[in-house]
Amino acid sequence: MASYKLASWQVRLHEIIYESNTRAGKIFDITLLVLIVSSILVVMLDSMQDLHAQFGTLFLVLEWFFTLLFTIEYMLRLICIKKPLGYVFSFLGLIDLLTIIPGYLSFFYAGSQSLMVLRGLRLLRVFRIFKLTRYVSEMQFLIVALKGSMRKISVFMFFVFALVVILGSIMYTAEHGQNGFNSIPDSIYWAIVTITTVGYGDITPATPAGKLVASAIMLIGYAIIAVPTGIITTEMALSARHMKQQSRTCRGCGREGHDADAEFCKYCGGKL
Amino acid sequence: MASYKLASWQVRLHEIIYESNTRAGKIFDITLLVLIVSSILVVMLDSMQDLHAQFGTLFLVLEWFFTLLFTIEYMLRLICIKKPLGYVFSFLGLIDLLTIIPGYLSFFYAGSQSLMVLRGLRLLRVFRIFKLTRYVSEMQFLIVALKGSMRKISVFMFFVFALVVILGSIMYTAEHGQNGFNSIPDSIYWAIVTITTVGYGDITPATPAGKLVASAIMLIGYAIIAVPTGIITTEMALSARHMKQQSRTCRGCGREGHDADAEFCKYCGGKL
Amino acid sequence: MASYKLASWQVRLHEIIYESNTRAGKIFDITLLVLIVSSILVVMLDSMQDLHAQFGTLFLVLEWFFTLLFTIEYMLRLICIKKPLGYVFSFLGLIDLLTIIPGYLSFFYAGSQSLMVLRGLRLLRVFRIFKLTRYVSEMQFLIVALKGSMRKISVFMFFVFALVVILGSIMYTAEHGQNGFNSIPDSIYWAIVTITTVGYGDITPATPAGKLVASAIMLIGYAIIAVPTGIITTEMALSARHMKQQSRTCRGCGREGHDADAEFCKYCGGKL
Amino acid sequence: MASYKLASWQVRLHEIIYESNTRAGKIFDITLLVLIVSSILVVMLDSMQDLHAQFGTLFLVLEWFFTLLFTIEYMLRLICIKKPLGYVFSFLGLIDLLTIIPGYLSFFYAGSQSLMVLRGLRLLRVFRIFKLTRYVSEMQFLIVALKGSMRKISVFMFFVFALVVILGSIMYTAEHGQNGFNSIPDSIYWAIVTITTVGYGDITPATPAGKLVASAIMLIGYAIIAVPTGIITTEMALSARHMKQQSRTCRGCGREGHDADAEFCKYCGGKL
Repeated sequence: MASYKLASWQVRLHEIIYESNTRAGKIFDITLLVLIVSSILVVMLDSMQDLHAQFGTLFLVLEWFFTLLFTIEYMLRLICIKKPLGYVFSFLGLIDLLTIIPGYLSFFYAGSQSLMVLRGLRLLRVFRIFKLTRYVSEMQFLIVALKGSMRKISVFMFFVFALVVILGSIMYTAEHGQNGFNSIPDSIYWAIVTITTVGYGDITPATPAGKLVASAIMLIGYAIIAVPTGIITTEMALSARHMKQQSRTCRGCGREGHDADAEFCKYCGGKL
Repeated sequence: MASYKLASWQVRLHEIIYESNTRAGKIFDITLLVLIVSSILVVMLDSMQDLHAQFGTLFLVLEWFFTLLFTIEYMLRLICIKKPLGYVFSFLGLIDLLTIIPGYLSFFYAGSQSLMVLRGLRLLRVFRIFKLTRYVSEMQFLIVALKGSMRKISVFMFFVFALVVILGSIMYTAEHGQNGFNSIPDSIYWAIVTITTVGYGDITPATPAGKLVASAIMLIGYAIIAVPTGIITTEMALSARHMKQQSRTCRGCGREGHDADAEFCKYCGGKL
Repeated sequence: MASYKLASWQVRLHEIIYESNTRAGKIFDITLLVLIVSSILVVMLDSMQDLHAQFGTLFLVLEWFFTLLFTIEYMLRLICIKKPLGYVFSFLGLIDLLTIIPGYLSFFYAGSQSLMVLRGLRLLRVFRIFKLTRYVSEMQFLIVALKGSMRKISVFMFFVFALVVILGSIMYTAEHGQNGFNSIPDSIYWAIVTITTVGYGDITPATPAGKLVASAIMLIGYAIIAVPTGIITTEMALSARHMKQQSRTCRGCGREGHDADAEFCKYCGGKL
Repeated sequence: MASYKLASWQVRLHEIIYESNTRAGKIFDITLLVLIVSSILVVMLDSMQDLHAQFGTLFLVLEWFFTLLFTIEYMLRLICIKKPLGYVFSFLGLIDLLTIIPGYLSFFYAGSQSLMVLRGLRLLRVFRIFKLTRYVSEMQFLIVALKGSMRKISVFMFFVFALVVILGSIMYTAEHGQNGFNSIPDSIYWAIVTITTVGYGDITPATPAGKLVASAIMLIGYAIIAVPTGIITTEMALSARHMKQQSRTCRGCGREGHDADAEFCKYCGGKL
């Protein structure tokens, strides 16, 4: 991975772009935030038929304006960092790239509307600025809790997946492939809609048998929806307690994990 | 901020209006409660076409009656308080004002129906009487818990917001801007309806691709809906434990935070 | 309240009807359970048009059969108890009476279909038999937890009620009393459907403004639905810990509340 | 129950089929996993009208191919195990059998489409391979927590069942058996759809009375949905703490259940 000594102007640039403790850095971050949000607004408004008809060209120009600015920014980020490749292949680096590409691709062929999704990803860039806010600790708490429960959740999700496949095929049979339950995939879609308690109502059981099975499925889903909540709540409770305990450290032996009301270190007996 | 010595009649009035430990105060509060509730009922009934046709004028008269009464009450509140401005700009003070205004505005121009919402705010005034009930401690508990989790919730809400924008634009592309996914804002509206498991069904995916993406979104929402629950539950558990511990204080050193079953103060060793 | 000495045959009858430790008592309870369930099934089947047309008379006969049996049972319950009035005005006693009445009322005037609801109450009688099952401790746990959180829940419900009234009137204004938001009560109904994440879709916002407000409401409801869960979970956690602790009592001083792994009583130092 | 000494080749076969610590065993498991998943995909695709029309015969051939393979596998499982009957009547053994049968039954009479559900059960076979993954501990945790809360959940479910029956009959009366509330069973179906917050919207109250009752039901369901979550969360919290405590054992007395920060065994005083 490429790596070289940075010149003073690069260091300065790095400070502005990557950090935010300097005044210039703060200004840069806020400008970027404004640009990102407004660029997303443009994409949104452009997607509305009537506005597109009226201001289509204006939106196109603005889109190009943003694309160019973000390209320049991307270049600068590459220039002033020690390990450009490291940045390129980092999560945020890839997002930065992905959000520029569609603009240029639309240049070559028209049907690149489908790439507009990538523009939506620009929103993720906001999280880079997020790190400055006073909410960073809350964000960390959530991330920690979610990471901690990720494995359990994924196992649960596998169970749910197996469940909806089976329930879907049961309903497909119960409704004899009619009333919207035209195929097993459709029935699985219905099962997901039902068990997540979303319940669009675009597909609903019509036969008594179907309604009976559906009722059973709903009651099952009723109990099952509690599982992810249980997992995450438990995880959060642990993280919360952990964070709370870590807050106090013994000056004597430097160990943590004391009760909130402890007066002496329980390891070395030193006054806290 | 204006502030002056109150005359005896003002003190007496203040007792009646702002407190409720006197008999007169209780009567005042209950009368007010009845007036508020009935005024809201009038607004509700007046909004129903047929009733409006029949009793329109009666409702108008009643509305004026309530408006005048509440105006008088507002005046009295201003007169008998030390810091009138403090009251005017207090949360409840503003509500009191907001709920009177529309009545008078409707006097000048007809199309003030949209101001009727403000009348709905009258319900918030009920919370003033709430402070008298035996449920005040429960209310405090809820408020404390919600305040405590507010920051985490808002961070989570930001995540959700970013998520729905991205998911919305994905669905917009998956359904080629058809089947109700006419624009990104509409698709975002759909994404919110889906991820909150409300699931109206006014917009539903029609293409296989759309159904696949939608299923994924629902399962994501399934896990995500657990997060706010986890946050608030954890917060409540902490508050509950905290409140429980505070309930017992050492007569010796006056410190709190003793286990429910402790017999001696763990700080000064005094009998509890 | 009437109270007298029971004759031996009454004592015997009381054993059979009210207790279940005797063989006769068990048989009585099971027979009753079967009768209740089948009587409810009859009511259900009778409500289905086609079945009513076919077996209407049979159902009527059966209904009378059940009504008479339950009447006899009610009499017996009155006879063999010390304080008949105490039973009559007890929760289960009133249900017993309520579930007999409609049968006789239907005798006098035809349009007593609306009384059929009362027949549904028969299901509550099942809970009398419930007390025999091995699940009684679980039932108590749930009841204790729900009772404990009842006050908090009711305060929360009041908040929700105030919220839906205000949100309802906001939507009524946003949609200009159209698209199903024909009146404030209708809009409140919609707000309840939305905030509880039921989301029928019978009323949905059509205007952009309405969709925007609705989205906000959904996200609010998203956070709010967590509150009752938090309340009940916290309460259950407390009850669970409490029940767990009560399980062990010191033989020395007879006090409870010892850790699950404690070997000595923390109050008197006696071996557990 | 039959039981005999296994020959060396049987032991070898057993290793491959039932275990997975050998290379051959791993290969077998992965092959099986691939076969199961692809067989399910075939069933799904075959259920789609157009694909069935096009590739119907191909799917049929594949189905036979899978059926034969699974039959052979089943035979092998029988041959190489000590207690064949024990396997046959085990949960996974029955599933293995159930997923083979339909293939052969379809041989004798055509209308065996309804048996296709059984094919869906093949997915459950995946859980056999599950035991190999690194997620086994998470799976155990979930199973333990669910088992622990099973009794409470079932009691709760009984309550819910009684509730929906009563609410259903109330709505049936409130809507006079119209607007989709054609019978009590239908109304009960609606009540389940509502109280589980699924809310299809295929049946919705039309009369003001109905809407009022429905609103009440929704708010009740709002509080009730919290109960299973509470149960499972509490259970998980206990399991989590339990698991955490068990992690550390005293080398001296070999007893577990020490606090995470304990330095000495609280039973024998030995250094942990």
